[in-house]
Amino acid sequence: MSGPVILALPGNETLAAEIAAEAGAQLGTLETRRFPDGETYLRLLSDVAGRDVILVCTLADPDPLVLRLIFAARTARERGAARIILVAPYLAYMRQDQAFHAGEAVTSVQFAALLSAEIDRLVTVDPHLHRHKALGEIYGVPAEALHAAPLLSAWIRTHVAAPLIVGPDSESEQWASAIAAGAPAVVLRKKRRGDREVEIAFPDLAPFAGRQPVLVDDIASSGRTLVMACQGLQQRGFPQPICVVVHPLFAENAFDRLRTVSAQIVSTNTVPHPTNTISVAALLASSLRD
Amino acid sequence: MSGPVILALPGNETLAAEIAAEAGAQLGTLETRRFPDGETYLRLLSDVAGRDVILVCTLADPDPLVLRLIFAARTARERGAARIILVAPYLAYMRQDQAFHAGEAVTSVQFAALLSAEIDRLVTVDPHLHRHKALGEIYGVPAEALHAAPLLSAWIRTHVAAPLIVGPDSESEQWASAIAAGAPAVVLRKKRRGDREVEIAFPDLAPFAGRQPVLVDDIASSGRTLVMACQGLQQRGFPQPICVVVHPLFAENAFDRLRTVSAQIVSTNTVPHPTNTISVAALLASSLRD
Repeated sequence: MSGPVILALPGNETLAAEIAAEAGAQLGTLETRRFPDGETYLRLLSDVAGRDVILVCTLADPDPLVLRLIFAARTARERGAARIILVAPYLAYMRQDQAFHAGEAVTSVQFAALLSAEIDRLVTVDPHLHRHKALGEIYGVPAEALHAAPLLSAWIRTHVAAPLIVGPDSESEQWASAIAAGAPAVVLRKKRRGDREVEIAFPDLAPFAGRQPVLVDDIASSGRTLVMACQGLQQRGFPQPICVVVHPLFAENAFDRLRTVSAQIVSTNTVPHPTNTISVAALLASSLRD
Repeated sequence: MSGPVILALPGNETLAAEIAAEAGAQLGTLETRRFPDGETYLRLLSDVAGRDVILVCTLADPDPLVLRLIFAARTARERGAARIILVAPYLAYMRQDQAFHAGEAVTSVQFAALLSAEIDRLVTVDPHLHRHKALGEIYGVPAEALHAAPLLSAWIRTHVAAPLIVGPDSESEQWASAIAAGAPAVVLRKKRRGDREVEIAFPDLAPFAGRQPVLVDDIASSGRTLVMACQGLQQRGFPQPICVVVHPLFAENAFDRLRTVSAQIVSTNTVPHPTNTISVAALLASSLRD
């Protein structure tokens, strides 16, 4: 055997198996458990000597996962792995990309440096790039950002007859038009009113009357903007929107709140969630075959 | 200001303040919180340029703590700290000190290497050394193991009139005699019966009739051996034992089980727990003054 070995960190078993099937690669066995005192036990049961090791580990709620991931990478390295490739369908720590106040940890840079020391290559899906324009600015190893937009676009085309693609804020502008792929698309604008209150400004939607609004976003975390957008669209005479997101983080009770104001919530399986409908396995596998 | 700055990671505020008071050092401010998606926010509010930074972070249930600790160390370094000293009153990952089966992660070595890259010095209390004889075998930076035995010894001398010091297993032999400091001491022996069952062998305890048994151990984790020892001592006509431990981990329901078979449980504050009675603050402070 000399092809790559795909190993799932806990919680990533289903996606790892799908990637292995799509890529025609071997699915290896990584045994992990926690001792009663919370420490990690980890055992690599596959022969990885001289072979590429692909660790599949999505990084939603990352803090408890990182040490285990480092143990896995180091153990694979010690067992003679040729290269360690991290497939993190959702990549954490992309938000704090500068010190807004003196003394703040720039965790995007620190996290990237930490991971870059453990792996030889990173593959992820739609990282939340903001002030950093590319992963290469912070990652010291080749880092590939795959785009789920075509998958979202295909899902919408197949499942929604007369969609109106709606980007919930100005950051989603490029995103919304990529997904629209010819369908009508609009972008909403956030207006801050004081410190905490946010209002959403809607463009004239009269030309799109009768269409099914489809809200698209990269991350659903607090879900606050999506909820407000859903409510605003209904107030303007549209049916309950369909929400299509790449990364369904849904912190705290965000999912329940969004459910009550939307017709359907659809997500990719970058983060395991009941709304997972669109698989990124083939997308990830195609990148790994290169 | 040029003395050291002591910074508490979350959960270590009380001990850090005690150490600062004992050492006459400045207690600095490290602000941390979690975003709703589980990521860490961290801000160092004290001026650390050119000064030693002492991070106080006990490592019970370590996996969710390590990334935050690394962010703290790197931020202090970026802000110009002279040296980063980690005070980890309880040090994690001392158990898996060899690969018992092929492919097992030797987490004690991996964890030590990871931490050693972030800090300049480590101070801890009674690490659970087993096959490693000294921290220096695995830590790449000066690593000091302080001993709580004199503190336990002093507590017993003050609070127990006619103690019989009992070490629960052969690993506790040196430990028990160090604590006894002249008081009578015995060591129990574990006998394995089959795969899971463990029995305890008691020496002849007739010469110690009328004494108050005091079980001493470095770690109370599952507490199983301590519970069996308590039961065995009572069956032999002794009053309910007092348990004195350094590190009160008490995984799962261990504390409740031990409570029902012992007269009192006493621990040091290396791990925050309702049984904390003996402070290691002065011990840690004296080591930091050197």
